[in-house]
Amino acid sequence: MKIEPITAKPSKEELGARLEKVRALMEKQKLDYYISFSPINIYYLTNFANIVHERPFILVIPKKGTMKMVCPLLESTHVKARARCDLDYVIYYEFPAPAGQNWFDVYRPLFKDGDRIGIESAMPSGIREETRGTTIITNIIEEVRVIKTDYEIGRTVHACQVVDEGMKKLLELTRVGVPIITIYSGLVQAMMAKALIEVPDINLMASKFQGAVWPPSISHDPHIIPTPFMTMEEGGPSCSIVGAIVDGYGVEIERTLFLEHVPDHARKLFDLMMKGRALAYKLAQPGTVLEEIDKQVRQVFIDAGYEKNIIHRTGHGFGITGHEDPFLALGDKRKLAPGMIVSIEPGIYFQGKGGYRHSDTVLITENGNLKLTHAPEEIEALTFKK
Amino acid sequence: MKIEPITAKPSKEELGARLEKVRALMEKQKLDYYISFSPINIYYLTNFANIVHERPFILVIPKKGTMKMVCPLLESTHVKARARCDLDYVIYYEFPAPAGQNWFDVYRPLFKDGDRIGIESAMPSGIREETRGTTIITNIIEEVRVIKTDYEIGRTVHACQVVDEGMKKLLELTRVGVPIITIYSGLVQAMMAKALIEVPDINLMASKFQGAVWPPSISHDPHIIPTPFMTMEEGGPSCSIVGAIVDGYGVEIERTLFLEHVPDHARKLFDLMMKGRALAYKLAQPGTVLEEIDKQVRQVFIDAGYEKNIIHRTGHGFGITGHEDPFLALGDKRKLAPGMIVSIEPGIYFQGKGGYRHSDTVLITENGNLKLTHAPEEIEALTFKK
Repeated sequence: MKIEPITAKPSKEELGARLEKVRALMEKQKLDYYISFSPINIYYLTNFANIVHERPFILVIPKKGTMKMVCPLLESTHVKARARCDLDYVIYYEFPAPAGQNWFDVYRPLFKDGDRIGIESAMPSGIREETRGTTIITNIIEEVRVIKTDYEIGRTVHACQVVDEGMKKLLELTRVGVPIITIYSGLVQAMMAKALIEVPDINLMASKFQGAVWPPSISHDPHIIPTPFMTMEEGGPSCSIVGAIVDGYGVEIERTLFLEHVPDHARKLFDLMMKGRALAYKLAQPGTVLEEIDKQVRQVFIDAGYEKNIIHRTGHGFGITGHEDPFLALGDKRKLAPGMIVSIEPGIYFQGKGGYRHSDTVLITENGNLKLTHAPEEIEALTFKK
Repeated sequence: MKIEPITAKPSKEELGARLEKVRALMEKQKLDYYISFSPINIYYLTNFANIVHERPFILVIPKKGTMKMVCPLLESTHVKARARCDLDYVIYYEFPAPAGQNWFDVYRPLFKDGDRIGIESAMPSGIREETRGTTIITNIIEEVRVIKTDYEIGRTVHACQVVDEGMKKLLELTRVGVPIITIYSGLVQAMMAKALIEVPDINLMASKFQGAVWPPSISHDPHIIPTPFMTMEEGGPSCSIVGAIVDGYGVEIERTLFLEHVPDHARKLFDLMMKGRALAYKLAQPGTVLEEIDKQVRQVFIDAGYEKNIIHRTGHGFGITGHEDPFLALGDKRKLAPGMIVSIEPGIYFQGKGGYRHSDTVLITENGNLKLTHAPEEIEALTFKK
């Protein structure tokens, strides 16, 4: 398994191999077609990224032969410029369009009544209703995406270098009194500059750079969004997040940090988070049932008396997005396997006193796991003075 | 009709009035519930913005009483911090979750078999399948969103001031040899700074700032995405776009421009575009059927011999997004009405020689229309020398 960073676009062979895996599952489920509307899945199979708007893009995958792309005239050259696989184009004029020239007019005749057609659970109900044949919800492409190819791993290693740069900048800028917007701007610029220089012909429609710090007064609440002019507070824990999607590869790194000093009550809770985290890394190897990791890590926090302070799962998968299958969570009964890429980020949260969580992007290898993101992890190295 | 800029968050009364309009349509269609999954529609009714990921947010609107928000535990405080209306919370633990604690476990019991339930055409098929009762696709909220309230008009006027600032910066920076990334960075920073300073507690999850210039070698293709290091070319036409969503209000301004000199062939085509544009403004008043504008503007270009050079409609609506109902397009048989906000942007495109298009954000008033965005429009004022 190679772990050199890759920044080149996917080859036709890489995309073809992905399609073959999708087709193997189609065959197993006796599907005549699979239809993808998700821009993520379309990107995975074609390298073309779109933003969903009122003019639909629909990828039709027949069990054999060339895939068809239903797309608006205005965007057809955009698709052709980015797609790196063979596609037959089924082009409609506009949305809306004169009678007979709408997207559904060109889409409907692609199928016949007896066809068995797989669709995504995310498929809009309105498109499903225009689809002839029997439609069956089955997330085949998501299933294939779970195990990464060597190419995808290489791209992810590069994306991790970008967020490492963002976290480095975040740790440099985060000091008492600094507003979040200053930190945000600095880290976004640092990541964007690196990505722009290193990824040839980067697709900004498949890229995103973000990050922030939650000071201790709000760090108990990881999904509240800090306001731009909120300033950094003395003490801690502050929770920080740096995430990026770099030309279609999503990763993250997160650190709990302190400013000026570590409050007395915080040290023991930081250590407890680190204990749960160490256990998660120990368990994160091929064959482990995903929910088992969450269960055992939760038990560490429960045994310490903090069951109610657990408010999220231990981790999630990465791929084209920053959040996807599989999940290190109660209820995910799949097994870890080499080529999965997940976050390991157990956390505990105390109302008004702050949250404790590190997150890294981690590759599951043949023998265990490999952390792909890098930043200080220990409390001393994460305490910053003016 | 007030046209002063507004930057304050919506009041509870404003949101309540929007809900009443939705309920009036629900009653007309004899619906017991309407379900919204679209983050745009949820933002419209609640002021809470989310990004769709694997943990669903679902807004359930009963015909009477308080709306219910189905959301993950981790995000419930985020919703509470942003929503500016009454909501009952139906909270699930995580995605995935142990048996009995998944989103569908709390969602399913909200309905009974006989219920008539309206859903968006964008509703994911997987959520529709978990919805008991009879589900009917009907885009009620989109319908209500078409006519703006005075408050929404005020917010849009402010958003237009932000894109005006972005266009000003774009026109300052666009000179022969300058790379697109320099222009992009400059205009994004200019808009973001203005928005951050002027909108109290701006929600960056409901904000987006972007813009670019297509040099003449690619400006025939308005939906190809220029690459970051592409540099500005002498002559023209270059096409430029500045768009923003400012705390939930999306608008745009676009200009065709020239560098150093105007090529001989370009002047007549620029004038033709301006002729089509002037006709669109003349027709854009209450009572005009939307497709009639597109039809008549197209005829101007067709009469000049350029039918095949028309590759898109004359305009689209604005609101929370930068692209929405209604459409100045063949096939849209609705009538313009006061309070609609649309783009007017007829264009003609010549392979390898460039495209011609101005776009503005335009309010339909009682008597006609009012341009809300401002930048030079004439060819002399849009020709820039080093």
